[in-house]
Amino acid sequence: MSGPVADSRDLPEPVLVIGSGLIGTSVALALRRAGLDVLLSDRDESCVLTAVEAGAGRALEPSDVPEVVIVAVPPRHAGEVLAEASERWPEATISDVTSVKHGVLVEAVARGADASRLVGGHPMAGREVSGPAAAVADLLDDRLWVVTPLPRTRVEHVRRIHRLISACGALPVEMDPQEHDAAVALVSHAPQVLSSVLAAQLAGTDEDSVRIAGQGLRDMTRIAGSNVDMWSDILSANAGPVADVLQQVASDIERAVDSLRSLAAGETGPPAAVTDLLRSGAVGRGRIPGKHGAAPSAYREVLVQIADSPGELARLFGAAGKVDVNLEDVRIEHVLGRPSGLVGLSVRPDAADALIKALMEQDFDVRG
Amino acid sequence: MSGPVADSRDLPEPVLVIGSGLIGTSVALALRRAGLDVLLSDRDESCVLTAVEAGAGRALEPSDVPEVVIVAVPPRHAGEVLAEASERWPEATISDVTSVKHGVLVEAVARGADASRLVGGHPMAGREVSGPAAAVADLLDDRLWVVTPLPRTRVEHVRRIHRLISACGALPVEMDPQEHDAAVALVSHAPQVLSSVLAAQLAGTDEDSVRIAGQGLRDMTRIAGSNVDMWSDILSANAGPVADVLQQVASDIERAVDSLRSLAAGETGPPAAVTDLLRSGAVGRGRIPGKHGAAPSAYREVLVQIADSPGELARLFGAAGKVDVNLEDVRIEHVLGRPSGLVGLSVRPDAADALIKALMEQDFDVRG
Repeated sequence: MSGPVADSRDLPEPVLVIGSGLIGTSVALALRRAGLDVLLSDRDESCVLTAVEAGAGRALEPSDVPEVVIVAVPPRHAGEVLAEASERWPEATISDVTSVKHGVLVEAVARGADASRLVGGHPMAGREVSGPAAAVADLLDDRLWVVTPLPRTRVEHVRRIHRLISACGALPVEMDPQEHDAAVALVSHAPQVLSSVLAAQLAGTDEDSVRIAGQGLRDMTRIAGSNVDMWSDILSANAGPVADVLQQVASDIERAVDSLRSLAAGETGPPAAVTDLLRSGAVGRGRIPGKHGAAPSAYREVLVQIADSPGELARLFGAAGKVDVNLEDVRIEHVLGRPSGLVGLSVRPDAADALIKALMEQDFDVRG
Repeated sequence: MSGPVADSRDLPEPVLVIGSGLIGTSVALALRRAGLDVLLSDRDESCVLTAVEAGAGRALEPSDVPEVVIVAVPPRHAGEVLAEASERWPEATISDVTSVKHGVLVEAVARGADASRLVGGHPMAGREVSGPAAAVADLLDDRLWVVTPLPRTRVEHVRRIHRLISACGALPVEMDPQEHDAAVALVSHAPQVLSSVLAAQLAGTDEDSVRIAGQGLRDMTRIAGSNVDMWSDILSANAGPVADVLQQVASDIERAVDSLRSLAAGETGPPAAVTDLLRSGAVGRGRIPGKHGAAPSAYREVLVQIADSPGELARLFGAAGKVDVNLEDVRIEHVLGRPSGLVGLSVRPDAADALIKALMEQDFDVRG
C-alpha cells in the first residue's frame, strides 16, 4: 500500500476462492493470470483437484491466512459460508459472486459475519456450461461486475474488491444490494420465469401447432431450456423482487386480455390498450444497449439468402471479411423442410453499402 | 385435368394476386417462376408497377378472367376483398394469405362470398422487411403454408390451392380455420404480446438496470421491436384465441407470484410451484422442432472465443468450412465493454469433435 499508483504490488494476496464451480474457478484463473497467489477450497475435493490442475491456484492449507475470501457457492449456502469465513479469518475482506445480494448479505450478518469487512459482488458472466473444467481465465473479461457494499462496510475493503475485479479484467459497478436485486429480477430472473411460462404452454399442445412455430418463439423460449435446479435456487433467493416484476407483468397481460376480449365480443375501433402496450414495448426494447454499449438501432441488418451446405457460410464470411467491415451480430433464420437459410449480418449503417456491394459481386443473394 | 400426373399443365391460370405487398408479390414471383400467367392488382397503382417491374406478372385488365384469386391484403380488409372477388369472378377459386383465418373467412361469407369456392391460406414466411421491392421468388421455399378449407368448400378448389402452393415451393398443411387461429395465437401472437409486455417493463427503469441486461433479455425482447400497426391489426383480428392463451399465461404467472410471495414471507422448503413451472417449460421447449424439423437437442454447440475485429469471423468460418461439417446454427454472445465475442456453432453431435479439432489446429480458443 506504499505507492500512489495501484499496480500489482497493491493487490491483496493470498486470495481464497471458496467453491470451485464455473464462476469460482474462472475468477481464480483470472486472479492467477494477474500474478496473484490463489487458494482454493470446495466441499467436493475432486472439484478442487480439477481446478488446481487447470492452474487456478493451490489447495487451501490449515496454515494459510487469506487477505481476501471470495465465496462462489450456490445462493442457498452463500450466507452461511460468508459467516464462517468471516469468523475464521477475522482480518480478511469477505466477498461473494452470488447472483442475489440482499438476502445473502442479511443472512451472512445474521449468522455473525463482520459487516465492516463484507462486500457483496455479482459478475455478470455467462453460464452456458458449468463446473471447474469449463472455467476459463477470460470469462470475466469486459464483463460488468456489480459490487454491493453495506452501509457499515469500510471503504478500504470496498477498494480491495474493486482492484481485484479490475485485475480479473472486469468492470466494477457499485449498486445498493436491494437495487441490484430489483435490477436482476427485471432483466434476468423475471424473463427466465416468463420464458418458462411461455414454453410450458407448448407442453400439452398438438404437433401441428408446434410445427408452425417460427423464430420469435424459438428466441423467447431459449432460456426455458436452462438448468431447473439452479434457477429454482436463484428465484427462491430473490423471491420478493421477482414477484414484484411478475405481478406487474401479469397485470399488464390482464389489461391486454380485457382489451382483446372486448374486441372479440364485437367492440369496434382500434385496441387502444394493446396498441399502447406494443408501443411501450418498442420503447423499452430500444433501451437495451447493443454490443459495446451502442443502441441497437445503431446497426443495420443485411439479409443474405444462402444454400445450407458445408462451406456456404465460410464463403459468405470470407466475402464479408474482404471488406474492412466489422460484423456486430450474426443470426441465422431457421427454415423447416429442405436446406436453405436466411443469414442476418448486423453492421454499422455507414458500412452496410460496402458490405452489400461486396456480397453482390460474389453472387450472394442479398435481401437488403 | 386430363393426365393422371399433376404437372404444370394441370395448374390453373391465370392467377390473380390482389395486394402487391411483400407476401403477395413474393407469391406472384414464385408462381411466375413456375411458368404461370399471373395478374396483379392493388389499391396503390405504384405498388403494382413495382411488382410488374420485378417480373411478378402483369397488371389486371378489365377483360381478364382469373381461375384463381389470391387475396394478400391486411386482415381488416381481407373479408371484404374476398367477397368482392367471389362476386366478380363467379367461377374462380378464392383464397388468401392472411395470418388469421376464422374471422376473415366468416366475414367473407357474411359479405356474400361463395363458400364452396373459398379456401383460406396462411404461408408461414418471414416479415423482416415489407413492400413489393423486398419480395423474392423463394420467400416461400420450404415454408409451411397452412390451408383452411370450410366445410362447404368443394374439394376441387382445395386441390387447386394445394397445387399452387407446391408450385410456389412451399409445403401445404391442412387445418381447420379455428385450429389454425388457436395455433398461431399460441406460437406467434401471444409470444409477441409477451415480448412487448416484458420490454415495456424496461421503459421507465434506470440506466444501471438495463446496463446489466444479458443475452436472455435481448432474445426475449427482439420481436418487441416489430411494426406496431401491423401487430395491432393482427392481434385485433385474432383477439379471442390470443386472449385465451394470454389468460392462461397470466394465471400461470400469478401462481408463480403466489409461490414466490410465500417464500419471501419466510416459508421454507423448495418453491414447488416455481420448480414445476420451470420443469414444464423445459419440456415445452423440447417440443419445438429444430432446423429441418430435427429436435433442438439433436445439435451440440461448440463455443469459440474470438477477437471482435474485421476478418476474425471470416477466419473462423473459413476454418470450419475446411471440415465437411454443416453448421446448423450460429449465435454470437454480446459482451459490453472492450471488443471480444463468444460464438456458438451448432452442429450434429457426430460432427462436433472434427470441428473442435480443426478449430484448435487453427489456434482458435475453443470452449468445448
